[in-house]
Amino acid sequence: MNRKFGGLWPAMFTPVAPDGAPAYDQIEALADLLVSQGMDGLYLLGSTGQGVLFNEEQRKRVTEVVTDVVAKRVPVMVQVGSLTTAESVRLAQSAEKAGADAISSVGPIYFSGSAQMALSHYYSIAQSTGLPFFPYQLGDKSIPGDIISFIDQLLDIPNVQGMKLTTGNLLEISLIHNHAGERLQLFSGADELLCHASLCGTSGAIGTFYNLWGPQCKEVIERFRGGDFEKSRHFMLTFQKVINEVLPNVWTFLRKAMMLKYNIDIGQTKAPLGIGQKEWTVHDVTLILNELENASSGS
Amino acid sequence: MNRKFGGLWPAMFTPVAPDGAPAYDQIEALADLLVSQGMDGLYLLGSTGQGVLFNEEQRKRVTEVVTDVVAKRVPVMVQVGSLTTAESVRLAQSAEKAGADAISSVGPIYFSGSAQMALSHYYSIAQSTGLPFFPYQLGDKSIPGDIISFIDQLLDIPNVQGMKLTTGNLLEISLIHNHAGERLQLFSGADELLCHASLCGTSGAIGTFYNLWGPQCKEVIERFRGGDFEKSRHFMLTFQKVINEVLPNVWTFLRKAMMLKYNIDIGQTKAPLGIGQKEWTVHDVTLILNELENASSGS
Amino acid sequence: MNRKFGGLWPAMFTPVAPDGAPAYDQIEALADLLVSQGMDGLYLLGSTGQGVLFNEEQRKRVTEVVTDVVAKRVPVMVQVGSLTTAESVRLAQSAEKAGADAISSVGPIYFSGSAQMALSHYYSIAQSTGLPFFPYQLGDKSIPGDIISFIDQLLDIPNVQGMKLTTGNLLEISLIHNHAGERLQLFSGADELLCHASLCGTSGAIGTFYNLWGPQCKEVIERFRGGDFEKSRHFMLTFQKVINEVLPNVWTFLRKAMMLKYNIDIGQTKAPLGIGQKEWTVHDVTLILNELENASSGS
Amino acid sequence: MNRKFGGLWPAMFTPVAPDGAPAYDQIEALADLLVSQGMDGLYLLGSTGQGVLFNEEQRKRVTEVVTDVVAKRVPVMVQVGSLTTAESVRLAQSAEKAGADAISSVGPIYFSGSAQMALSHYYSIAQSTGLPFFPYQLGDKSIPGDIISFIDQLLDIPNVQGMKLTTGNLLEISLIHNHAGERLQLFSGADELLCHASLCGTSGAIGTFYNLWGPQCKEVIERFRGGDFEKSRHFMLTFQKVINEVLPNVWTFLRKAMMLKYNIDIGQTKAPLGIGQKEWTVHDVTLILNELENASSGS
Repeated sequence: MNRKFGGLWPAMFTPVAPDGAPAYDQIEALADLLVSQGMDGLYLLGSTGQGVLFNEEQRKRVTEVVTDVVAKRVPVMVQVGSLTTAESVRLAQSAEKAGADAISSVGPIYFSGSAQMALSHYYSIAQSTGLPFFPYQLGDKSIPGDIISFIDQLLDIPNVQGMKLTTGNLLEISLIHNHAGERLQLFSGADELLCHASLCGTSGAIGTFYNLWGPQCKEVIERFRGGDFEKSRHFMLTFQKVINEVLPNVWTFLRKAMMLKYNIDIGQTKAPLGIGQKEWTVHDVTLILNELENASSGS
Repeated sequence: MNRKFGGLWPAMFTPVAPDGAPAYDQIEALADLLVSQGMDGLYLLGSTGQGVLFNEEQRKRVTEVVTDVVAKRVPVMVQVGSLTTAESVRLAQSAEKAGADAISSVGPIYFSGSAQMALSHYYSIAQSTGLPFFPYQLGDKSIPGDIISFIDQLLDIPNVQGMKLTTGNLLEISLIHNHAGERLQLFSGADELLCHASLCGTSGAIGTFYNLWGPQCKEVIERFRGGDFEKSRHFMLTFQKVINEVLPNVWTFLRKAMMLKYNIDIGQTKAPLGIGQKEWTVHDVTLILNELENASSGS
Repeated sequence: MNRKFGGLWPAMFTPVAPDGAPAYDQIEALADLLVSQGMDGLYLLGSTGQGVLFNEEQRKRVTEVVTDVVAKRVPVMVQVGSLTTAESVRLAQSAEKAGADAISSVGPIYFSGSAQMALSHYYSIAQSTGLPFFPYQLGDKSIPGDIISFIDQLLDIPNVQGMKLTTGNLLEISLIHNHAGERLQLFSGADELLCHASLCGTSGAIGTFYNLWGPQCKEVIERFRGGDFEKSRHFMLTFQKVINEVLPNVWTFLRKAMMLKYNIDIGQTKAPLGIGQKEWTVHDVTLILNELENASSGS
Repeated sequence: MNRKFGGLWPAMFTPVAPDGAPAYDQIEALADLLVSQGMDGLYLLGSTGQGVLFNEEQRKRVTEVVTDVVAKRVPVMVQVGSLTTAESVRLAQSAEKAGADAISSVGPIYFSGSAQMALSHYYSIAQSTGLPFFPYQLGDKSIPGDIISFIDQLLDIPNVQGMKLTTGNLLEISLIHNHAGERLQLFSGADELLCHASLCGTSGAIGTFYNLWGPQCKEVIERFRGGDFEKSRHFMLTFQKVINEVLPNVWTFLRKAMMLKYNIDIGQTKAPLGIGQKEWTVHDVTLILNELENASSGS
């Protein structure tokens, strides 16, 4: 297996400036931080990175800025899915030119799709560059129709090397791994099932909370794979509790937490995302940061 | 009740030129045809009109072209929902300037939403113009959370005058009508339930197939409301059968049928929409056109 | 079409005595009332009749008592579905012996089923008597797997003459009618969609509320089929509103309403059904009875 | 924590005689085998034990026979859920008299229930004996309404000591554990997620396949908790593959496999359960038995 596409990857935030454009200085600072923390790769402009809420030029520029600052220290995978296949292709080609290491794409947006439509969309994007391609399947009913038939058709697409599976349905992940084996390197996308999913044949995990708690999560998944069941169990239960707690106001939490912990401002989410979420106090955010870190340090 | 927002409205196609831009000549021809057929209004740039697959400038231009050719003969409602609230607002303001009669918008796209997020999104769009606003709720689980609470909050948004409800769940339509009464003018959006939905408090219907069979559907819904149960029943069963039959390859069917029946070319759908659908023969399309028209003429 | 299996059929209550056994005197009184009101048939021991909550002997005796009092004035259909196929078969044979006119059965209970399991279950029951058989499909995802294939296999079962479709998915009803035509006489089972479903190829309706408002509902559906759109629309909207209102405490409502309106005591539901529902005041029940009757009399 | 209710428990088959009655000699042989294999307890008359397909007297007798042969060597929990609450109570009291160690019950069967109805049903059963009570929540949408509110009400019921959670939704298990802590001892019920669920706060697992592969599964879960990640991962992926493979014809597989491996005949399932499943060859069953055992022995 190509070890390049495995391990713990933050689905990197794209910090937003007050005018709604990407905040390039904060993006550079964040990318640099995550690499210095030992993250195994960066996933750009996915749901966490608000990819579809930026325009085409902004997405291209964000990709260039991150690939520059990362400078090949870790692999960078860029999510290029857009409303039109044509824009997705342009974004993929531009990411390749910028020096990205892999392309990823969500399936069709808005028009709920047949397997056929999703596969055609992926085909056009995947074959437009020479980079490895990782479809990003989103949601608990992520794959339309029969899974095995979908996977077989996916394996026929040039450059397909794995998938990002953001689902709570672990059996779907196992089913894909049992069928495709080493032909697909699977990333799980549900942070709250980080350890559980690693039992299902994944080679890595991509997620939102690894922007904030990358080192803690990396330590836990490595300890878990190394045999520390009890500690991992304790951490995961706390992690799930915390995620549940912050979820209704997750974006305001993340913004304040990133500021407190790293002095990086990820900015206000672009509407409609996150609009109307209530503000957190420093006190409440600090309590949660401490709770998670205590669970990690294993008291 | 404001009679302006009722009756049968095609969710107008946006014909596409070979280069993927709107085909303005065909758009003009289609708008003119639909008005001449006695349609009660036009709904632009919704799902049928591939609204989200065109860029901002194209959407503005399509709106101007249609409002010009319609020249106030019937009301025009423009769907402005986009990935960002900001673009939706700009499209709404531009539609008002172009002389549209109402604004409509789908809820947040991509980020599956809380009621709060959808309502914030609608609020920003609705208050940005002086035109009546019609949220477009899509899908069978269209309204997040408790429906009554959602409707109460919706009624507090400035300019809200009705809704477009594209759902097979008729009881949801009745529930909204029973709660909101004349404060909301409801359009049903499932063509195959045209008559059934009219029992649930709707004032009109907006749909794809009224581009092709507007006069037939208008006659049926009027006859149905006038008491012709048996004829309407027969037509609806045939209509449902036909829709079922064409659905897997609906876009290639519609293109050929519009060409044969009206000599209007709606073009190739913009990818990923409709990509990979199989071509129909003239013979098969003709059979279906005849079948539906026979059901209508009541042989 | 065999006119015997059409029109408005109450899913007859099975009044319960204080000791939990059937209250045979009230059962007789109710059956006699419903026949005298002009109902087109009686459906015994379904969900409304708490069929599965009585033991085998009680179900047989209820069937005998009702067929005796009805004395062929209207057809009687008996729901015989049980946890085991064997008990269902015994109940079917006993219903035939008692003089019932048709057998109905829910699919497998408890073990969520494949199409194969449901069809095997139906086959055993249907072929065990010489009576017409009507499978009772329950729920919005009522038919497992592909509907057309299910219907084709169903049509191969001896004695199958129709179906009871308790679903809010009207398109499923139309699909079955469009496919099976006169080979299946369809009863709709969602009272709140009485008129709407009649546009989908049903020959009749079976429901709970026809115990209470049979004459009103019969008048409405007949007027609707005869062309009185506006009155039917008004009634259905009120009927839906009332059903919504009583649903959380429907059993205590029905008991009090039947007592007030007809002096028939349907008794306390057998636990767990209906346990914990709050009591209604005479005043509140009377208001609802009046509201529905006003909607019917068409003020 | 009471260590009595934890570890690996087979959801014991109830072997069926040719006449459909329980096959008491095979029941005794199976119970004795499972105890001798070191299983931590036995769960009787659940879904795997076809509990609801036997009549009341048969269920009582099966309980007596098993408690006699087990003779307190391991704890015995008896599933008493029935169509009526009254029968469930009688079965619970009879199980207590027979010397069972705990009572379990599914929620209401057939009538899809509100939280209120399920809780009332559980209350009546739980308070009818002095034994620990474990509600059995079945299915991915197992808990009606808000989970936390449901759990709080459940904790107010006398004798409630834990739950059996047969769901693929691991986050629901974690949520309940994070909320109830040591007040509820949780058994997971999805065999194919045995190890994954143990990260979510469960104290044990109850399942079908532990009749067949109890020693293998016990070794794996113990090794997993002891730190053998890689072996457990490999076993679980194989176990999931095997379960997927046998599922469409699981009952005919289990019958033949139990016969081959232990010379115990679990008999023909009671209709409608398992009817129509295709027969397996000895060769195919043997291959699967070998595949799973190889995965276990850790080559």
